[in-house]
Amino acid sequence: MTSKTLHVDLGDRSYPIHIGPDLMTDSELLQTRIRGQQVMIVTNETIAPLYLAKMEQALVGKTVATVVLPDGEKFKNLETLNLVFDALLQQRFNRTVTLVALGGGVVGDMTGFAAACYQRGVDFVQVPTTLLSQVDSSVGGKTGVNHPQGKNMIGAFYQPRSVLIDTNTLRSLPDREFAAGMAEVIKYGLIADADFFAWLEANVSALMARDEDALQHAIAVSCETKAWVVAQDEREGGIRAILNLGHTFGHAIETATQYTSYLHGEAVAVGMLMAMDLSHRMGAVTLDDCQRTQRLIEACGLPTKSPEGMNIDQFMTLMSVDKKVLDGSLRLVLLEKLGKAYVGNEFSADALQDTLGAFCH
Amino acid sequence: MTSKTLHVDLGDRSYPIHIGPDLMTDSELLQTRIRGQQVMIVTNETIAPLYLAKMEQALVGKTVATVVLPDGEKFKNLETLNLVFDALLQQRFNRTVTLVALGGGVVGDMTGFAAACYQRGVDFVQVPTTLLSQVDSSVGGKTGVNHPQGKNMIGAFYQPRSVLIDTNTLRSLPDREFAAGMAEVIKYGLIADADFFAWLEANVSALMARDEDALQHAIAVSCETKAWVVAQDEREGGIRAILNLGHTFGHAIETATQYTSYLHGEAVAVGMLMAMDLSHRMGAVTLDDCQRTQRLIEACGLPTKSPEGMNIDQFMTLMSVDKKVLDGSLRLVLLEKLGKAYVGNEFSADALQDTLGAFCH
Repeated sequence: MTSKTLHVDLGDRSYPIHIGPDLMTDSELLQTRIRGQQVMIVTNETIAPLYLAKMEQALVGKTVATVVLPDGEKFKNLETLNLVFDALLQQRFNRTVTLVALGGGVVGDMTGFAAACYQRGVDFVQVPTTLLSQVDSSVGGKTGVNHPQGKNMIGAFYQPRSVLIDTNTLRSLPDREFAAGMAEVIKYGLIADADFFAWLEANVSALMARDEDALQHAIAVSCETKAWVVAQDEREGGIRAILNLGHTFGHAIETATQYTSYLHGEAVAVGMLMAMDLSHRMGAVTLDDCQRTQRLIEACGLPTKSPEGMNIDQFMTLMSVDKKVLDGSLRLVLLEKLGKAYVGNEFSADALQDTLGAFCH
Repeated sequence: MTSKTLHVDLGDRSYPIHIGPDLMTDSELLQTRIRGQQVMIVTNETIAPLYLAKMEQALVGKTVATVVLPDGEKFKNLETLNLVFDALLQQRFNRTVTLVALGGGVVGDMTGFAAACYQRGVDFVQVPTTLLSQVDSSVGGKTGVNHPQGKNMIGAFYQPRSVLIDTNTLRSLPDREFAAGMAEVIKYGLIADADFFAWLEANVSALMARDEDALQHAIAVSCETKAWVVAQDEREGGIRAILNLGHTFGHAIETATQYTSYLHGEAVAVGMLMAMDLSHRMGAVTLDDCQRTQRLIEACGLPTKSPEGMNIDQFMTLMSVDKKVLDGSLRLVLLEKLGKAYVGNEFSADALQDTLGAFCH
């Protein structure tokens, strides 16, 4: 099987992303990607039984230790992070250690943050095992944990030494989680690449059937698009915010349902449709493009409506506490046209109300 | 009264250090040094009664909140750090907040780390109130907290937006703490500047009497020297290690006495003499230079011997777990001559034993 390699260009923090089947058990690749002798694999209870033994085998010859975290966003906090520090210090691992994040976004965010902080920064290799983490957290260097009063409130911008995306992991990924990852893949088409969007429309069946070539292409274009955006704005001062298309609406949905009934990607799918609807009401984006997007999202088995019982007022309240809100003015990611996003606050309150109304039951 | 300003040159992370009396109450200076509207002053129970009200007054017009931490190295941990995050989120402070560290090294290290992590990085202004923190943590960007299994094991390299060194704070600083800071001042002479060392010998009485001009000069040269070293090696891969002159011996002393009987600077003072003694045994550094250093250290009222009851074996054990030890080979900061340090492991085990023996009771 062939694989792809692409490079995220961030000066002296540049790194490669390898995409292909069986990368996790590719001993030669792993060994060249890890500079020192000491390796700490950080994973969780769900992933460990699936892949941990294989990966340890591929790392033969290194001094390998593992820490298995509880699974779930609710454990993404300072307390769980401390388990990683405890394990590192118990092993007496020094500044030459490489942390390997084996798991989805939560494992990646926590492992990256642990790597950023351990002895003020050690190497970190990502092995993302969900489509969402492969196309999202592989690029961008956002790491961190949640605080009871807010998501991702404590963290660092910290780049991995390399990312290994083993497409085999997608074969064991539950359909619902795969679809949630597709929401972010579609996002890249919407914000930056109309051709890729059209490609997704043509290839959605192949993707949902986990066709290897289709997967590699979709993941590679997604990572490239994100890398292109991040390279322009590594620390999120400006354009990078377009990556949050649908996220302000989506966060409101996730918060209203207490992060239990909608996966992140599902909430973002609805949120993207809402952002497009608002863009359309403002005279940008055609109705046809809104409908194309809705059909693509439906083809992935993703939701297109906000949760039962959620109303306009609840949306408004929850959106105004979003951390992307500066000095009280609500800024949203909107589309100029399909394939081009921007961040603005020049929408009318009426149009926003109409959009919210259209997506509430 | 005149004041001095020097610049730490680190590319886009460069910042000024202002040194002079009454800077903390200089409303104009403070207001220009803080970019946003939101300010969180982080201080501790000892410092708050002395300076907090004054500083709040100087910040009139800003939205100011404070968090008062318990005082002491034993509170420099993730749990106390979380009090800062709690306070920031309770105030709903956003990415435009500036954290002001008002206190000594512990407050500075924790506040800097909190600023590095809060929403993945916010502004941070240092107002160090001890001589040690003024000449040490003002420059270098080392922030962090301790872990039960090791000092400064969790942290970040993160630069302040500016440092305000108010020399008035030294007038209320206890003599013993002032002397501990002097150990680090002397260190800069030893590692990089023989002329400054000679100036210190000539001006030690003025310094101990807290003469304003002498203080400003000593602080400025110390910060400049540290800045010169750090600029060459921001993330501590090489030459920066010379700043640890005396620290490996010193850490052993601090650990042996469980951080209770020796202040950090006191342990470093003994450690520097030990490093010089070892350098002398290896044929570098003259006996005269060792004696000059001992006299200067004594003139500051600093100790020159290791603690009662501490023996050679204990030193050896404690030094081999030092985090600066890579792959089992003990590397120490040594002097080529007074005013020039290097890091090496080319000393004989016998010479090390002799040095340890000479400093144990």
